[in-house]
Amino acid sequence: LSLSLSLLPGCYEEYSSSSSSTSRAAGMNGNGPSKLVDPLEDPVPGLGTYEDFNTIDWVREKSKDRDRHREITKKSRQSTVALLHSVSDAFSGWLLMLLVGLMSGALAGGIDIAAHWLTDMKDGVCLIGFWFNHEHCCWTSNETTFQERDRCPQWQSWGELITGTSEGAFAYVVNYLMYILWALLFSFLAVILVRAFAPYACGSGIPEIKTILSGFIIRGYLGKWTLIIKTITLVLAVSSGLSLGKEGPLVHVACCCANILCHLFTKYRKNEAKRREVGVEADVRLVLFYVEFHAPWHLVELAPFILLGIFGGLWGALFIRANIAWCKIRKSTRLGHYPVIEVLVVAALTALVAYPNSYTRMSGAELISELFNDCSLLDSSQLCGYKQVHLADRPAGEGLYTALWQLALALVFKMMITVITFGMKVPSGLFIPSMAVGAIAGRLLGVGMEQLAYYNHDSFIFKGWCSPGADCITPGLYAMVGAAACLGGVTRMTVSLVVIMFELTGGLEYIVPLMAATMTSKWVADAFGREGIYEAHIRLNGYPFLEPKEEFDHSSLAVDVMRPRRSDPALAVLTQDGMTVGEVEALVESTHYSGFPVVVSPESQRLVGFVLRRDLLISIDNARKRQEGVVSASTVVFTEHALAQAADAPPPLRLRGIMDLSPFTVTDHTPMDITVDIFRKLGLRQCLVTHNGRLLGIITKKDILKHMAQIANRDPDSILFN
Amino acid sequence: LSLSLSLLPGCYEEYSSSSSSTSRAAGMNGNGPSKLVDPLEDPVPGLGTYEDFNTIDWVREKSKDRDRHREITKKSRQSTVALLHSVSDAFSGWLLMLLVGLMSGALAGGIDIAAHWLTDMKDGVCLIGFWFNHEHCCWTSNETTFQERDRCPQWQSWGELITGTSEGAFAYVVNYLMYILWALLFSFLAVILVRAFAPYACGSGIPEIKTILSGFIIRGYLGKWTLIIKTITLVLAVSSGLSLGKEGPLVHVACCCANILCHLFTKYRKNEAKRREVGVEADVRLVLFYVEFHAPWHLVELAPFILLGIFGGLWGALFIRANIAWCKIRKSTRLGHYPVIEVLVVAALTALVAYPNSYTRMSGAELISELFNDCSLLDSSQLCGYKQVHLADRPAGEGLYTALWQLALALVFKMMITVITFGMKVPSGLFIPSMAVGAIAGRLLGVGMEQLAYYNHDSFIFKGWCSPGADCITPGLYAMVGAAACLGGVTRMTVSLVVIMFELTGGLEYIVPLMAATMTSKWVADAFGREGIYEAHIRLNGYPFLEPKEEFDHSSLAVDVMRPRRSDPALAVLTQDGMTVGEVEALVESTHYSGFPVVVSPESQRLVGFVLRRDLLISIDNARKRQEGVVSASTVVFTEHALAQAADAPPPLRLRGIMDLSPFTVTDHTPMDITVDIFRKLGLRQCLVTHNGRLLGIITKKDILKHMAQIANRDPDSILFN
Repeated sequence: LSLSLSLLPGCYEEYSSSSSSTSRAAGMNGNGPSKLVDPLEDPVPGLGTYEDFNTIDWVREKSKDRDRHREITKKSRQSTVALLHSVSDAFSGWLLMLLVGLMSGALAGGIDIAAHWLTDMKDGVCLIGFWFNHEHCCWTSNETTFQERDRCPQWQSWGELITGTSEGAFAYVVNYLMYILWALLFSFLAVILVRAFAPYACGSGIPEIKTILSGFIIRGYLGKWTLIIKTITLVLAVSSGLSLGKEGPLVHVACCCANILCHLFTKYRKNEAKRREVGVEADVRLVLFYVEFHAPWHLVELAPFILLGIFGGLWGALFIRANIAWCKIRKSTRLGHYPVIEVLVVAALTALVAYPNSYTRMSGAELISELFNDCSLLDSSQLCGYKQVHLADRPAGEGLYTALWQLALALVFKMMITVITFGMKVPSGLFIPSMAVGAIAGRLLGVGMEQLAYYNHDSFIFKGWCSPGADCITPGLYAMVGAAACLGGVTRMTVSLVVIMFELTGGLEYIVPLMAATMTSKWVADAFGREGIYEAHIRLNGYPFLEPKEEFDHSSLAVDVMRPRRSDPALAVLTQDGMTVGEVEALVESTHYSGFPVVVSPESQRLVGFVLRRDLLISIDNARKRQEGVVSASTVVFTEHALAQAADAPPPLRLRGIMDLSPFTVTDHTPMDITVDIFRKLGLRQCLVTHNGRLLGIITKKDILKHMAQIANRDPDSILFN
Repeated sequence: LSLSLSLLPGCYEEYSSSSSSTSRAAGMNGNGPSKLVDPLEDPVPGLGTYEDFNTIDWVREKSKDRDRHREITKKSRQSTVALLHSVSDAFSGWLLMLLVGLMSGALAGGIDIAAHWLTDMKDGVCLIGFWFNHEHCCWTSNETTFQERDRCPQWQSWGELITGTSEGAFAYVVNYLMYILWALLFSFLAVILVRAFAPYACGSGIPEIKTILSGFIIRGYLGKWTLIIKTITLVLAVSSGLSLGKEGPLVHVACCCANILCHLFTKYRKNEAKRREVGVEADVRLVLFYVEFHAPWHLVELAPFILLGIFGGLWGALFIRANIAWCKIRKSTRLGHYPVIEVLVVAALTALVAYPNSYTRMSGAELISELFNDCSLLDSSQLCGYKQVHLADRPAGEGLYTALWQLALALVFKMMITVITFGMKVPSGLFIPSMAVGAIAGRLLGVGMEQLAYYNHDSFIFKGWCSPGADCITPGLYAMVGAAACLGGVTRMTVSLVVIMFELTGGLEYIVPLMAATMTSKWVADAFGREGIYEAHIRLNGYPFLEPKEEFDHSSLAVDVMRPRRSDPALAVLTQDGMTVGEVEALVESTHYSGFPVVVSPESQRLVGFVLRRDLLISIDNARKRQEGVVSASTVVFTEHALAQAADAPPPLRLRGIMDLSPFTVTDHTPMDITVDIFRKLGLRQCLVTHNGRLLGIITKKDILKHMAQIANRDPDSILFN
């Protein structure tokens, strides 16, 4: 369940940036003894917080949270109010989860209804009230039969409304034009709103959320403006008919909800494992399609299923390459300067090409539903245009041949347009478009197999299990298998996750076809590169994200990656006593490092602790303003007890309280694969390197990512953030 | 999916103990430079392996695996044979997984068939062939109607066979006695086989597997004898009618299969994440019950569902306490010396009490199936003994009242007998018995609600949704909810896992009832203690297992936990040069530590590396035998270059190759919660403690577990292994 787990809404960003100030300021740096000597009794604003686009220190944050929890538990034994506080603290987690579920569920429902209404508006209008969508409009009509339930006099297409008749070329042209106009209007509104109010609302948001959950700060990415604008523009983008889905953006919306609701529980900081436990998995699951097949599958069919897997893998690898190439073009050429025009052109192109073909005109979700469906006798869909001699005998008829042609064209169109759509400055998901591609390919292959079996039922392949009259091949199942293969190829979610997502639509008996196709798809796609689309976008944007599955297959050691390199000047360190405020300030000003190790003495290089640049600057600044006698000549002291000094010297500035007394260290001989593992599993930001007990250098997450880029022959400067 | 993930078959044990010798002996200690100075060119047998009942060093093992992989990849560029080797290496993982799935699936099927046959043998025999079970026996009969398909002349109960009639008290008594005799025979065989051939085959095996997967060595626990004996005795134990299930032991069987099949792929050592990916989840799922309900549930029903959750939680907490107390009695009194007699007494007691009551006489799985089932018109089961005026109106009739009484008695009996059954020296699982308890309670409550609604359909509670004639309350659903609640209460699996397991039997519409009941159950049970039954047994047995979810809520620091304590003698360390072979041997002999830090000099205490006792002894032993001139006066050198020494001195013994050059260190100020996190996430065995760059002490996994036991006011000496 790695996707639903890793994508679950969390409030890590705000959690880390807002919560830390209180607990850190309370002198609880995770280090008991430091409390005793902490001179900063009042909370210093900003101490212990992070800058934007920076990586948090995961272990520290968790440790602070536990300190807070201990404090509450301790107090709860003292008074009833504190006890109540402790109980509400324990239960706020569950309440938060419930609220997040309700809020994101309500938003998802609202988005669905609104998108449905706007999509229908491209076709026509309801005369009894413009706020009805096509289906609702006809519910009120008594004149419709079950068969024609989507046709009623109350609903008029734009052509009908303007020309007075629903027949004829003129009405068709009017419909066509109105369709394009609405598509342009919706997409224009979507891109303009995103640009004007919330630039973070574009895209699917999943690469960024993965990075944020791994401990990166992007302020406002999960904020209220992003939530509001993403919700509105998602409706518009989906309605405009662009080749995009709403599932990825819905995860972003749910994460925004979680983050915003966290503000209601400033005291809520239970560990993240609990939050993930109950989870909003339902959110992810609700997007599924409900189908039931009744025919069993035969071992021979594994061959076409594996073929679909190969198709899915090839398409996944190709899509990722093409999409990343296109995004690079957008970044590097003038195209990137005209996002509004880009969206309008793509929307117009999509509408222009999509309208004449009924399979591209319908929404992606409708298309998939139709492709998954099995044909029953009553089915009037073109896809079921068989010469129906007998229920189970299915020679293809005229209607089906037309449908196959249209589907083939739709496949080519979808494959091309999705490449240029994903990455535009509107909210856009990938699940539906990639599943649609797979479903079309699967359905085509399924019908092909069906006809092959019908005309060759005596051949050795089909003999025995697919005799005439037997309902042996289910094209809808092929569509489902194809959709799973393509989804797996593009996203590289784990095989079991893809299978779980689809299993719900079928049942246990289809686990083998799904498994075979998704495993093949993963193998094939991995052969062209191990990154899924989200990881590729993370790298494209230079986010500091250590891919958990990526193997580090190089035999370098920590000493090869750490800074300073052999030719560089020595590491900038502070000494635990003996430096003056002026010297410390000069050292900090002359470098751009975000933290400094503290050593016993420059000669011994024995490590005492680690101080963050931001904390250091804020503390000195604060001391200069508030503490008397702190001047540039005052000594800075990181030890527990200050050394005796001359009577006329200014009082020392004691900063042990802001020092991290337990910095992580590895030896210079530690293989980098172990170091990378430590960074990944513990969520570190930096790690100090020692040799025989002496401090030698420092490795940050950015250093590791740069090193990995270098090994893979990529530009190490593509890693932008720290 | 934490359970199915954490319980997936892996070959960690053998992997760690058999694979390491090759890679370590190849001089690839994960430390590039050490290769250059490694004097041991031939593999030394035993070097790099572990003793039984010891914890492995996870990080090192993984690192060695990566070294091996790199080696193969490098070689594959040189020759075609090596390339083929590399490809087969990559694919062996998938093949292994497939084989494990097939083998454990086949065994599970075989166990099922055999247990079915033996269970029926307790009742009677098939005259046309004793190898038919009851159902198969009657398949061949033409005389049976659909209604009486389980009665046919070919199948004769023992009473009928002996007395000549199936009626009358005498036949009943004969049946009763035969039932008890067979139960005694089966249970006797089971316990004797376990004791004689494979003591590790008893119990569910899940506590041990959890510990092994976390990096502990129990030789033979996943071996072929355990597999064979566990398979046979599981059939016998299930057939004997004891209150136990076969799902837990099946997981153990699957793990044995995986471990044994790993021997076929000595070259197979891809990382464990891949192995878990595709998984044998199907194995775990196949145990489920297939039910379909059609009636929706109403919000009011959440109240009884939550009630079931409370029951499940209370039962879970109570069961764990009672079972652990009973196991402690078994361990500490003379009861433990007579496991065979214990099993026979419990089996006789179970058979004696179970036979007269049809709900206890049937197997646990049958019972659950029956309780989950909804009543249809044709159903002849006693549970459906309604006065059937109308299909949906269901006033309880005579039959149902009898059934309710029997169920209530069965509930009390099951609750008591399961407590003393789990932990006996036969293979025994807990899923089925705990689900059975919940299902009975749920069914009772469900029928109660149904009757309440029938007789009070005008009250404000039922009005509107449960009017006469409406099929509003489904007792089978209550049984399912109850089963989930009890399973969750006993095992404390994550809520989402329990829901997923049950969801498959119902559908998405029942996710809320299941969620409500399992969440309540978890809360209630956690209030009495946070351990599930498996964790409780792990602790009872003193295994070194760091519970991943358990919060470490104490503010101690690394310095408080490390050894030596303040009053102890100083830490036993080796110096990197200057010690003789004799001195090293004396130091090793005088202590029982499993490893020794190497420092620059006793004065500086600057850490260089870490050497394992076993490796040290084997190397010295080997050098004395094979290397010329190594005597007690030879110096032991851990540096890269030996110091110049007198010309007549014996040549130095260079042991840098066996030294771990990158031992993990934390500072003395590191809070223990962070240290515990590091141990958990990285799978460490030990960690060195430093202060300002000087070595201060060492913390092992055992020290941590002892410390945690002390904090929780438990006996720290209950932690037995290292």
